Amino acid sequence: MLPNADSDRLRVILVAPRNPLNIGAAARAMSNFGFFHLRVVNPYELAFREARSAVGAAPLLAQATEFKTVAEAVVDCTLVVGTTSVGQRQLQHPVRRLDQAARLLSKQLAGGRVALLFGSEKRGLSNEDLSHCHWLLRIPTREEHRSMNLGQAVAVCLYELARDPQASVKPEKHAPAIAADLERLTALLLDALRASGYLKLHPIASQKRRSAAPTEDKIRRLVHRLRLSAPDAELTLGILRQILWKSRKDNDRSQ
Amino acid sequence: MLPNADSDRLRVILVAPRNPLNIGAAARAMSNFGFFHLRVVNPYELAFREARSAVGAAPLLAQATEFKTVAEAVVDCTLVVGTTSVGQRQLQHPVRRLDQAARLLSKQLAGGRVALLFGSEKRGLSNEDLSHCHWLLRIPTREEHRSMNLGQAVAVCLYELARDPQASVKPEKHAPAIAADLERLTALLLDALRASGYLKLHPIASQKRRSAAPTEDKIRRLVHRLRLSAPDAELTLGILRQILWKSRKDNDRSQ
Repeated sequence: MLPNADSDRLRVILVAPRNPLNIGAAARAMSNFGFFHLRVVNPYELAFREARSAVGAAPLLAQATEFKTVAEAVVDCTLVVGTTSVGQRQLQHPVRRLDQAARLLSKQLAGGRVALLFGSEKRGLSNEDLSHCHWLLRIPTREEHRSMNLGQAVAVCLYELARDPQASVKPEKHAPAIAADLERLTALLLDALRASGYLKLHPIASQKRRSAAPTEDKIRRLVHRLRLSAPDAELTLGILRQILWKSRKDNDRSQ
Repeated sequence: MLPNADSDRLRVILVAPRNPLNIGAAARAMSNFGFFHLRVVNPYELAFREARSAVGAAPLLAQATEFKTVAEAVVDCTLVVGTTSVGQRQLQHPVRRLDQAARLLSKQLAGGRVALLFGSEKRGLSNEDLSHCHWLLRIPTREEHRSMNLGQAVAVCLYELARDPQASVKPEKHAPAIAADLERLTALLLDALRASGYLKLHPIASQKRRSAAPTEDKIRRLVHRLRLSAPDAELTLGILRQILWKSRKDNDRSQ
């Protein structure tokens, strides 16, 4: 088993779950394997209330916290990992097999909070959800039947994570940046891209769709891929702020 | 994954299951992990009929066979293993942890049929059931909450059995950026820092030394720490070029 302090840093996040039995089953598996912090994003309200009776997991469910968006639910986490049944989709994310993923998660848990995201029963995680993730994990199932029941997927992931024999590995030198900083960085970078006219020139903008979302997702993914430490995130934020400030000043003067 | 011929020799046996959802969930996990032979001993009849619609597992359930006793259900198996949430009870059986048990089961599956028994939701396997077993396996859970949901216990056991510890798949990744690109990135970032006045404001500049070298080193180290892939380096170079181009244009206009 993981050291208690480490397992206490995991946040299991169910995004838009619909079936109370699955929420209850997820909570029960968490309790079985020693993970106690459940977060639920935008659940079907009735389902969330009905779930509160899962065998042996009532206290855990009573303490579960509810969020409107994935961004809010992961705001204090240094690593955000999504689960997927799909191989590579159109994903720009690396997809790791559960056993390898568990080793990385264990390492990270030694130093900071880690979010493990599970999508809704029908659709899994959306592209917007995925844009908040640093990388994805996949439970190795048969090609022909990849989609697992939500409660069972949670149980298998937590089993693998709890049993990790490597459990205590050294944390990284600097604490990784928290999601809130990465979100600020994404917003600033988007501002800089707009101010410089970059978005007008490059297909990244997907102007055809008349929506900023794909660009925003793409930039967020880029920022997450950088795996910034907390000090580097701060440094980068400072650089971007200064570049933007100068760009606005020049712009004002030239008008 | 196990060789198909081997996984085809496993018999998953549910003894006296009561909840159709659990029977369905067990079948779905079997299908996910490539085990197709389900046997059910003395089920609550209605539950067994209702289970037949589990997502993606209908054919498997339709072929499930029903037995009156454990003795009949295991009659063609060379190894019979029971699952238990209890440590040693009054059991005279050896109890193995799932990961060790799975290795033994894999070996045995190479040569003969193996039965894996799961007890009913409420009581687990009875002493009479256990008397048919060669040994027992236990999923390593918290002492304080050992009892797992039936469908989740099946999923975890089959995951462990199906996964081949030898198969190590590397995450699919892009080639890392070459040093020349990182050097270009460093130079551009320094230009942007100078153009924006950042270097004058921040100690990173080490102005006292009247030398750009420490700053350059610091920025180069930052760029290297990002561990950019080749496509991400190209993307970032493009962004920086555009920001610099705009900044120069504004600057020219304002002078």
